[in-house]
Amino acid sequence: MAATAVGPGRSTSSYSEVQHNRLIVSLPLPSVLKKPFSVIDGPPSSAAGNPGEIAKLFPNLFGQPSVSLLPGHTSGAALDHILKIGVVLSGGQAPGGHNVISGIFDYLQEKTKNSTLYGFKGGPAGIMNCKYVELTTDFVYPYRNQGGFDMICSGRDKIESDEQFNKAAETAKKLNLDGIVVIGGDDSNTNACLLAENFRGKGLKTRVIGCPKTIDGDLKSKEVPTSFGFDTACKIYAEMIGNVMIDARSTGKYYHFVRLMGRAASHITLECALQTHPNITIIGEEVAAQKQTLKSVTDYIVGVICKRAKLGYNYGVILIPEGLIDFIPEVQQLIAELNEILAHDVIDEAGSWKKKLQSQSHDLFELLPQAIQEQLLLERDPHGNVQVAKIETEKMLIQMVEAELESKRKDGSYTKQFKGQSHFFGYEGRCGLPSNFDSNYCYALGYGAGALLQSGKTGLISSVGVGNLKGPVEDWTVGGTALTSLMDVERRHGKFKPVIKKAMVELEGAPFKKFASLREEWALKNRYFSPGPLQFVGPTSNETNHTLMLELGAKA
Amino acid sequence: MAATAVGPGRSTSSYSEVQHNRLIVSLPLPSVLKKPFSVIDGPPSSAAGNPGEIAKLFPNLFGQPSVSLLPGHTSGAALDHILKIGVVLSGGQAPGGHNVISGIFDYLQEKTKNSTLYGFKGGPAGIMNCKYVELTTDFVYPYRNQGGFDMICSGRDKIESDEQFNKAAETAKKLNLDGIVVIGGDDSNTNACLLAENFRGKGLKTRVIGCPKTIDGDLKSKEVPTSFGFDTACKIYAEMIGNVMIDARSTGKYYHFVRLMGRAASHITLECALQTHPNITIIGEEVAAQKQTLKSVTDYIVGVICKRAKLGYNYGVILIPEGLIDFIPEVQQLIAELNEILAHDVIDEAGSWKKKLQSQSHDLFELLPQAIQEQLLLERDPHGNVQVAKIETEKMLIQMVEAELESKRKDGSYTKQFKGQSHFFGYEGRCGLPSNFDSNYCYALGYGAGALLQSGKTGLISSVGVGNLKGPVEDWTVGGTALTSLMDVERRHGKFKPVIKKAMVELEGAPFKKFASLREEWALKNRYFSPGPLQFVGPTSNETNHTLMLELGAKA
Repeated sequence: MAATAVGPGRSTSSYSEVQHNRLIVSLPLPSVLKKPFSVIDGPPSSAAGNPGEIAKLFPNLFGQPSVSLLPGHTSGAALDHILKIGVVLSGGQAPGGHNVISGIFDYLQEKTKNSTLYGFKGGPAGIMNCKYVELTTDFVYPYRNQGGFDMICSGRDKIESDEQFNKAAETAKKLNLDGIVVIGGDDSNTNACLLAENFRGKGLKTRVIGCPKTIDGDLKSKEVPTSFGFDTACKIYAEMIGNVMIDARSTGKYYHFVRLMGRAASHITLECALQTHPNITIIGEEVAAQKQTLKSVTDYIVGVICKRAKLGYNYGVILIPEGLIDFIPEVQQLIAELNEILAHDVIDEAGSWKKKLQSQSHDLFELLPQAIQEQLLLERDPHGNVQVAKIETEKMLIQMVEAELESKRKDGSYTKQFKGQSHFFGYEGRCGLPSNFDSNYCYALGYGAGALLQSGKTGLISSVGVGNLKGPVEDWTVGGTALTSLMDVERRHGKFKPVIKKAMVELEGAPFKKFASLREEWALKNRYFSPGPLQFVGPTSNETNHTLMLELGAKA
Repeated sequence: MAATAVGPGRSTSSYSEVQHNRLIVSLPLPSVLKKPFSVIDGPPSSAAGNPGEIAKLFPNLFGQPSVSLLPGHTSGAALDHILKIGVVLSGGQAPGGHNVISGIFDYLQEKTKNSTLYGFKGGPAGIMNCKYVELTTDFVYPYRNQGGFDMICSGRDKIESDEQFNKAAETAKKLNLDGIVVIGGDDSNTNACLLAENFRGKGLKTRVIGCPKTIDGDLKSKEVPTSFGFDTACKIYAEMIGNVMIDARSTGKYYHFVRLMGRAASHITLECALQTHPNITIIGEEVAAQKQTLKSVTDYIVGVICKRAKLGYNYGVILIPEGLIDFIPEVQQLIAELNEILAHDVIDEAGSWKKKLQSQSHDLFELLPQAIQEQLLLERDPHGNVQVAKIETEKMLIQMVEAELESKRKDGSYTKQFKGQSHFFGYEGRCGLPSNFDSNYCYALGYGAGALLQSGKTGLISSVGVGNLKGPVEDWTVGGTALTSLMDVERRHGKFKPVIKKAMVELEGAPFKKFASLREEWALKNRYFSPGPLQFVGPTSNETNHTLMLELGAKA
C-alpha cells in the first residue's frame, strides 16, 4: 500500500487562542543538541533480571552499551546524511506525543537535509500494513505543543509472530527505512526491542529506537527518569480535584470519591494526592503489600469519616486508583472462582450456586452491594469472564461505606447523614495541551531519538535528563538506554517472554514516604491544596510534578 | 447567639502559586464607582406578569423604580456614613461569590469608614439563627478572586413563614442592620424581595439588596445581563470537553456522552456546544417545544452515528443537559403513573402491575434499559417517589443507543462496533478559580450593592453592565433593578406565590440560532474546538462567553 490520505490533518484556523499561543512558543533544546556532538558508548549492559534468558532472547542486542551524547564532533563512524525514518504511536494517548514527532522531524530537517519522515498510521498495524503518511513541514506544524495523538493516531496491535515480523520487514525494505521510532509504554518498548532484534537478525539496516510514553507513570528506571504525559495528566486531574475540594468544603455535606486512571500502578493517584492533600488516598501497592481486604479498605475509610464527623466535618475527598480491585488478593480469588462457576454451572435465583464458593469468597460476595453482585454475574467479556474493568470502584466503595455507616448510625457511633458523590477522571487528562515540562521533555526525547538513529544505534530507548531533569532544559543530558538492560522475563504458556517490568509505587520511595508522613494530618485537618488550571506562562508554568522531584532527591 | 467562631478561615500559606497570583491581582472598577456618584431613579416599574397580584403581594415595594448610578454628587437625600450590613450566600456554589463579598467590603471600607460587615453563616438559616462572623480585612483578604463559598458557606433554607420572618427581623434589630445583601439565584432573590417587603412593612430600617448568582445561567433579564459563575463553569467544562474531543479523534472508537450540570435550563450545554462544536447536542427546551420522546431523541443520536460511520468516523462527542428527562413529556407522565402505582400496589416479579400503566407509559417503560427500570422501581426518596434526579441520563442514552444500533447491525445499516463512554461534569465547575470576567463582574456587583444600600434602597437586585458588558470594565453601568419588576405569580396549593421566572434557552434567541445553524456541519464534519485550560493572563484571558456576547448583539 502506498501513502494513504489522512485527510487534511489539522488546520490551525480551527484553533482556540490558547492553542495558537502554544503553537508559536519556541521549544528549548538541551545545549548538547545545539552544537556538534559525539555519541559515546558506556560499558556493556546486562538485564534487569535473568540476564541468561534475556541473552538468549536477544542474541544480537544483549549486552550492548547505553550511550550518552557529549559535546564535540564525532570521530570514527561516519554519520548518515540522508535518512528515511518512520515513527509510530503505540497504545493509549498521552500529552506530548506530537512533540516527540516534532522533535524527530526538526532533527532531520536541521541535521540531515533531504531526509524523510514517515508517520505510520494507527499504531504498529500501520507498520505491518505499510499504512503511512509522509510528514512535511506544513503537515507537522499545527501539532506543535498540542494534545492528542491524531497526527497519525495510535493502536494497540503488537508485532509478535514471525509473519508479523516479516510484514514489518517488508515495509522497512519497501520504504528503505534507516530507522523506526516507537513511542509507547512498557509493552510497546519491549516490542520495539524485539523488532530491533529481529531486523538486526535479518541483516536489515533498519534500526529501532523507543521513547517512554504513558500517563500512568509506570515506565521509568534509573536511566529513564519519567514517561511523558504523566506530568500533564496529573495536573489536569489535580485541577479538578482541587475544585471538588473547595466544593466539598463550601457545601459541607458530600464525600467525593474520585477514581483516577492508572490500572496497573497507582502513581497518578499518589501524585494527585501530593498535589492536592485529600483526606483519604488509597494506594494499590500498599493495599497489596499489606494484603488488605475490601472490608479493611472500607473500614479505613469509615474510620476516617467517623473521626471527621466528631470534629464537625461531614465532608471530604477520597482518591482511589482505577486498578484498586486488582490489588486486593481476595477479590482476585473471588473473580477466579466466579469465572469457573459461570463457565460450568447454572446461576439459580435461589442462590444455591453460591455453595460452590470457598468460604472467604462467599463472605466477600455477600459483602458486595447488590448492584455489584449483579454486574459480576451478568456482564461478561467475549470469553465469558467477569468484566472486572467495568466495575466502578468508586461507586462500589460509596455503597459499602454507606452500608457500614448505616450500621454505625444504629449504634450511635456515627450521627451524621452520609452522602457520596462519585467521579472518574480519565479521558479528560490523556489529550490535554501538554504542560511546559511535557512539551520540552518530549521535544528533547524526539530530537535525541533522531540523533541516536543518525549515529546508527538500535534497540535503545531515548533517555533525557538523567539525574538533572530538575534543572533547566539547557543542562539536560541526552542519550539512549539499552532496552535489553531494562528487561526481565516472565513465564507465559510455558515460554519465557521478555518484559520491561512496570515501575510500581515503591513503598520505600520518597514520594510514598512523603505522602505517608502527611496523610494523617490530611485526614483530619483540612489541608486541601488547589493547584488551579494549568498555566503556560508565569512563575509556576515551568514546575514539574512532585513524584519526579522527590525521586530526583528534592527535599521531602 | 453571638458571632460564632468560623475557625481561622483560609490561610494563604496553603495556597498554590496560581491562587497566589490571583490573590494579588488588582480588581478594576467601573469608572462611575471611582468618583462621587448620584443614584438616579428611573420611571415607576411594573411586573413581569400579573402586576395586580404582584402589587397585592408587595404593597410596600411594588412599582418602585429601578435606579442608575451617574457621576456627580448626590443631591437631596443624605447618605448614611456608618453602616452595619449583613451578607448571605444562598443556594449552590458559583465561582465569584467571594468577590461579591469583597466588593461590598471594599465599598464600606472606602466610602463609609467604621462600617461593619457581618457574614451570615450557612445561608439564610444564618440570618434566622443569628449565626454570623464579623468580616475583617484580614479575614476577607485570602478569598479575593478565589473559588468556593467557604468564606461563610451557603445554605438552601428559605425565609417564608411569619415565624421565620420574625426571627430574621430579630436578628436585624439585634445587629442594628442597615441592610442585608442576598447573593443567590431566582428563588433566593424572590426570597430577598419578600424579606425587603416584610422589613419595610414592619417599619424596620433594614434594607435588602439581591445579587444574581447561578452557574446555570437561568437568572437573567434585560436589566440583569447575566448571573455570575456561568462564565467560569462553562469554561471549565469546555476545557474538559475539548480534551475529550481530541481523545475521541485520536482513539477513533468511542462515543463520549457528556452530561452537564443545569437541571432546569440548558444554557450550560448550549454554551459548551458553542465553545467546543460537538457532534450532537441535546437542548432540553427544544426537546420540550417539539414534544420529543425518548425514542425520538435516541433515534436522532443513532441517525448521526450511522451517518458518521458511513463517512468513516466511528467516534464522537455528545452533550446532554442534566435536566433532559424533565423536558420529555412522556417521561413525566410515566413517572407520575409510577409514583401512583408504587404508593398503592405491589410490584410483582411477573410484572402484572404493568397493566396499570397507560399504553404509552407501558411502551416507554419497556423501552428503558433494565438497569433504569430497576432504578425507577427500587430507589425512592423519603416520600416514596421515584428519584428522577438520580438517573444518569448519559448512561441511559448509551444503553438505548447501543440497543438500537445492535438492531441496525442485524439489518446491516450499521456495521461498526459502538462503544460509549459516560461523563458527568458538574461539581468540578462550581468552585473553580473565577475567570477574569466573573472576578470583575462579581466585584462590581458587590461594590454596587454597597452603593445601593448606602443610598437607602431596598428590594433591588444589583445590576451591572446593562447593554455594555462587552466593553471594558471602566465603562460598565452600575445600578439596581426593582426585584418586583422581574416577578410573576404561580399558583401553588391554591395561593399565588411570587416567582422570578427562570430564563430558559430561547429557541428564537441568538445563541440557540447560531448553534442551530451550525449543528449539522458539526454533526458530520469534525469541527472540534478545544479552548484549553482557563488562562488568567494573556490575550484571551478577558474574553467572556458566547451566550452573553450573542445576547448582547455580537455578530453570529
